[in-house]
Amino acid sequence: MSPKISVRAAAGTRDFLPEEMALRNYVRNVIETSFQRFGFQPLETPAIERLDVLTGKYGEEADRLVFKILKRGRELEKGLESGDLADLALRYDLTVPLARVAAMNHGSLVYPFKRYQIQPVWRAERQQKGRYREFVQCDADIVGSSTISADAEIIALTYEILTALGIPKFCIHVNHRSILHDIITGVCGVTEDKFVAACVAVDKYDKIGWEGVREELDRRGLTKTMVEAVITALNFSGLPADVMAETAKQFEEFPELLSAYGEMSRLFEELQAQGVPEESLSFTHYLARGLDYYTGPIFETIVEEPKIGSITGGGRYDQLIGMFSGQDIPATGTTIGIERIFDVMRELHLFDAEIDAPVQALVAVFSKETRLESLKIAAELRRAGIKTEIYLDEAKKLGKQFAYADKKRIPFVIIAGPDEIAKGEVTIKDLKKGEQKVVGRGKICQALRAPITQS
Amino acid sequence: MSPKISVRAAAGTRDFLPEEMALRNYVRNVIETSFQRFGFQPLETPAIERLDVLTGKYGEEADRLVFKILKRGRELEKGLESGDLADLALRYDLTVPLARVAAMNHGSLVYPFKRYQIQPVWRAERQQKGRYREFVQCDADIVGSSTISADAEIIALTYEILTALGIPKFCIHVNHRSILHDIITGVCGVTEDKFVAACVAVDKYDKIGWEGVREELDRRGLTKTMVEAVITALNFSGLPADVMAETAKQFEEFPELLSAYGEMSRLFEELQAQGVPEESLSFTHYLARGLDYYTGPIFETIVEEPKIGSITGGGRYDQLIGMFSGQDIPATGTTIGIERIFDVMRELHLFDAEIDAPVQALVAVFSKETRLESLKIAAELRRAGIKTEIYLDEAKKLGKQFAYADKKRIPFVIIAGPDEIAKGEVTIKDLKKGEQKVVGRGKICQALRAPITQS
Repeated sequence: MSPKISVRAAAGTRDFLPEEMALRNYVRNVIETSFQRFGFQPLETPAIERLDVLTGKYGEEADRLVFKILKRGRELEKGLESGDLADLALRYDLTVPLARVAAMNHGSLVYPFKRYQIQPVWRAERQQKGRYREFVQCDADIVGSSTISADAEIIALTYEILTALGIPKFCIHVNHRSILHDIITGVCGVTEDKFVAACVAVDKYDKIGWEGVREELDRRGLTKTMVEAVITALNFSGLPADVMAETAKQFEEFPELLSAYGEMSRLFEELQAQGVPEESLSFTHYLARGLDYYTGPIFETIVEEPKIGSITGGGRYDQLIGMFSGQDIPATGTTIGIERIFDVMRELHLFDAEIDAPVQALVAVFSKETRLESLKIAAELRRAGIKTEIYLDEAKKLGKQFAYADKKRIPFVIIAGPDEIAKGEVTIKDLKKGEQKVVGRGKICQALRAPITQS
Repeated sequence: MSPKISVRAAAGTRDFLPEEMALRNYVRNVIETSFQRFGFQPLETPAIERLDVLTGKYGEEADRLVFKILKRGRELEKGLESGDLADLALRYDLTVPLARVAAMNHGSLVYPFKRYQIQPVWRAERQQKGRYREFVQCDADIVGSSTISADAEIIALTYEILTALGIPKFCIHVNHRSILHDIITGVCGVTEDKFVAACVAVDKYDKIGWEGVREELDRRGLTKTMVEAVITALNFSGLPADVMAETAKQFEEFPELLSAYGEMSRLFEELQAQGVPEESLSFTHYLARGLDYYTGPIFETIVEEPKIGSITGGGRYDQLIGMFSGQDIPATGTTIGIERIFDVMRELHLFDAEIDAPVQALVAVFSKETRLESLKIAAELRRAGIKTEIYLDEAKKLGKQFAYADKKRIPFVIIAGPDEIAKGEVTIKDLKKGEQKVVGRGKICQALRAPITQS
């Protein structure tokens, strides 16, 4: 035996054992099914991207969190001299890789290109509870359509997914970067160069409140008057119709805002047609979204309970793909925050009745001599689609084999002792009910699919 | 618009666009379903492992291919002084992570722990055709059972998967590391310290033939007599029963070999009971497998056409987990080489009839005024489980919308113009047949599920 070596997973990463995987796969399947029903098709991109593809897309704060991959061989030797140690990196999100793919395949894609992507991303975040360095993102994006209908579809999709998962109380907050921009610069007089900084500050309202935002804006060099103007102008949120009515009054002297409000009005109309109830929506003027690349409508979902931050987020980014293709291609999309959704569903006990038994039957082994016969039964059941284990260790007392099935939550045990084999029968034991019955070899599947007591 | 930046995927990586993904998901689902029918349950581990977990497990050659992740912040500064630039790495296979998980969860796992895992791995291979630096592995392993029944189950599973995928001519080669060991050291007199080197050389027989193996063994310091003895003793392969008979004669003076042959005989018996035909199996004495950690039966699948190397490979590794846990835990398993299976299936045109239309219906938009009604229809279809697109761009001539559906291979277009809306009907156009019919709004799903001409 070799000496024991240090045995830990990397900090900020997790293993998902079967019980956890059953929940994760359930949620993943619901999300994927919804994506497909909305006509989105799957895309997968590599975990490894060229470093120059990733940097400069997310904003400074995010750039620092990109995991870089050490150069190899002679390149590393050269790099040690130049100080340039990495040329590759792990993807930080699924949006920039999509933009790269769209740019590279511009000629062959049929637009609108509606893709979904469910893959992990990596961020070298500081360690803290509930923050992971590797986590799964589920994205749906529409590339090549500049219509507000595309944004509405993304929001309708978000609503359908959260409803299908049974999330009880959620609110999809919607805003428009043009509205933010025109209010912050046009209405409040903030200079263009401070617009992004102001957005980043406003985006923190949920976490730090208006008092905190006030300080942040102040620190970023806005005058007192501007700070108050921004806060007053953005402190609107609520049912779309109500906010529409209020803001129409508020900003009627700013005609440049009207076009974006017109788009928002159309957006809410389309959402209604698709059966998204107004109570699930909020037109939230202080919603800003952190990342640099958004250009149009933006959206984010908050659950009432538990307090956990946003569980979905996205928006329109009409210029990002142009950074790769040299030609702007409009796009909009969202991330469904599957990791936080797990947390919400666990906290609210939404998984309880949803998960099937992972293994349906254990074929017991009566004795060494009958193992081959048990193997034949297991093979028959598997070919009929029944998830089946056979007892793999040397045949032990049946009691031990029942205990094994019980520990693994396998509901049925199938026994073929010498008597049963001679008669072409098996005994099926229902561990939950503690009942058993004898059936012919050809009727096992049927018996497993129907409750035992009905026979 | 920003300037165009260099737009490439990292060398050795691939994007999978929807058409390719449909094939990949089909194969993945067949494999996953088989895993589940055999009672395996899912596990996922992080892509990032601590570097010390990975090194020293695979052998020198493999260790060099591990992608390392650059340290960050102050750790990097320290690392630049010490020359120790990486503490993390991307996983190289799924077996070592499984061993780590088993060691970390030793107290809580119910043995035998049967897990499957379908995730990418990364290897900094030299660039060459058909070699990727990021590729998916599909592994099934049984941890905590030392019986030959567990090895037999892995082989039976391999047979079921390849059969379910319709791979026409494949052969699962089986051998036993103890037989290799006892023949190379006991029968041929090679010293213990040269056993692994001899295995690595013999393992290359498929690629370099006996002449090449002869040279390699020579280069590794075996005497001429030893080299000839090894080649003569290992040059057996064919139907298990035949090889058993021949080798029994050949090695009857080496009783230490008998126990391993006894295990092999039991293994083939159990495979027969599970319906694996003997013609799909070969007892191949020169099968050695490259990696260091195997200790018992080993297996590998070769397809007759195309010539592509092995498409599955695995074996028993009873000491690997002990390197982490300090306590040996027996284990056996296989990798299903999904990437090569794609290549085989594509080359043999096995995908042709298997793949469903990714989107079933396009709801056309007759005019700006009828968009909301089209949206309602799309929402109804989606909730009924039909994969549905709505035409997202500004309403264009129907001909353009048909052309869009055609390009995206969407089989049905649903049209609701003012007349249809007034009557509560829609027109369904079957693009393949060029036929159309009118149905009531409540009967669309039914009509899409039945061929149009049957109505």
